[in-house]
Amino acid sequence: MKLIFAIIHDEDAHGVMDELNKKGFGVTKLASTGGFLKSGNTTIFIGVEEEKVDEALSIIEKKCKSRKQVTTANLPPTNITEGYIPYPIEVTVGGATIFVLDVDRFEKI
Amino acid sequence: MKLIFAIIHDEDAHGVMDELNKKGFGVTKLASTGGFLKSGNTTIFIGVEEEKVDEALSIIEKKCKSRKQVTTANLPPTNITEGYIPYPIEVTVGGATIFVLDVDRFEKI
Amino acid sequence: MKLIFAIIHDEDAHGVMDELNKKGFGVTKLASTGGFLKSGNTTIFIGVEEEKVDEALSIIEKKCKSRKQVTTANLPPTNITEGYIPYPIEVTVGGATIFVLDVDRFEKI
Ligand code: NI
Ligand code: NI
Ligand code: NI
Repeated sequence: MKLIFAIIHDEDAHGVMDELNKKGFGVTKLASTGGFLKSGNTTIFIGVEEEKVDEALSIIEKKCKSRKQVTTANLPPTNITEGYIPYPIEVTVGGATIFVLDVDRFEKI
Repeated sequence: MKLIFAIIHDEDAHGVMDELNKKGFGVTKLASTGGFLKSGNTTIFIGVEEEKVDEALSIIEKKCKSRKQVTTANLPPTNITEGYIPYPIEVTVGGATIFVLDVDRFEKI
Repeated sequence: MKLIFAIIHDEDAHGVMDELNKKGFGVTKLASTGGFLKSGNTTIFIGVEEEKVDEALSIIEKKCKSRKQVTTANLPPTNITEGYIPYPIEVTVGGATIFVLDVDRFEKI
């Protein structure tokens, strides 16, 4: 038995938990802030049989992988009468930091 | 030293923490959602000496064990003028998923 | 790789996280309550290379060490017309409970 701790982005939490549940993994979600992925992150943990660690990690990788997203930002106007000019910017979203721990003993009651 | 992670039902959190504290165990509670026990669950963790793991687990088992509870639900009326008919239903509450981890190093400052 | 779990006082969370970040450690903060340090505590966890565990622990020790603080409390009046009399009391603040765990596998995606 292994315990997987993954720190993921908030926006990926629902998708990765749905997919893990669908494949039979039990996932617990903890609210977290700061650190590894700077802001708006979530910690999930998953108890898995040793032989299923790779499957769980590949689901997390698929659903949380770091990717570029184009969004629009508003440029501050040089002349106040012109208003703000929206322009596209590229931001990186997603990503995960994953720790796999050994479980000494596992009980379900 | 061992670190016990237990995912329990919200309704059992107060009772099990009180009992663990009374027996001298230090417990930390984290809010959690989803996963092992579906909804409304709490994660607690407890640092314990190796020889006290069994005592801690038996307290968790006693206070959180899965049990049937009879509650009443309202049956939707077949005829709107009859109103809802309360009837007893049996639900399973409680239960816990427990991971015991080895602690490499323990410090209290 | 090691995973450090530290239960610290709320008031020390910002300072210790700032210092850990400044020294290049990634920290994740979880809200927690009760237990080791009774109330108003925070759990942080930090993934660190084995050779950096001592550095991380000494930052936590420096920023969270248990210390005495003088505060003023209001003594209940013996005579209601006298009002409350403020007097200084010494309280212990800070402190940390730290668990270092072995990491079996570490991934960053
Ligand atoms: Ni869904
Ligand atoms: Ni109580
Ligand atoms: Ni700051």
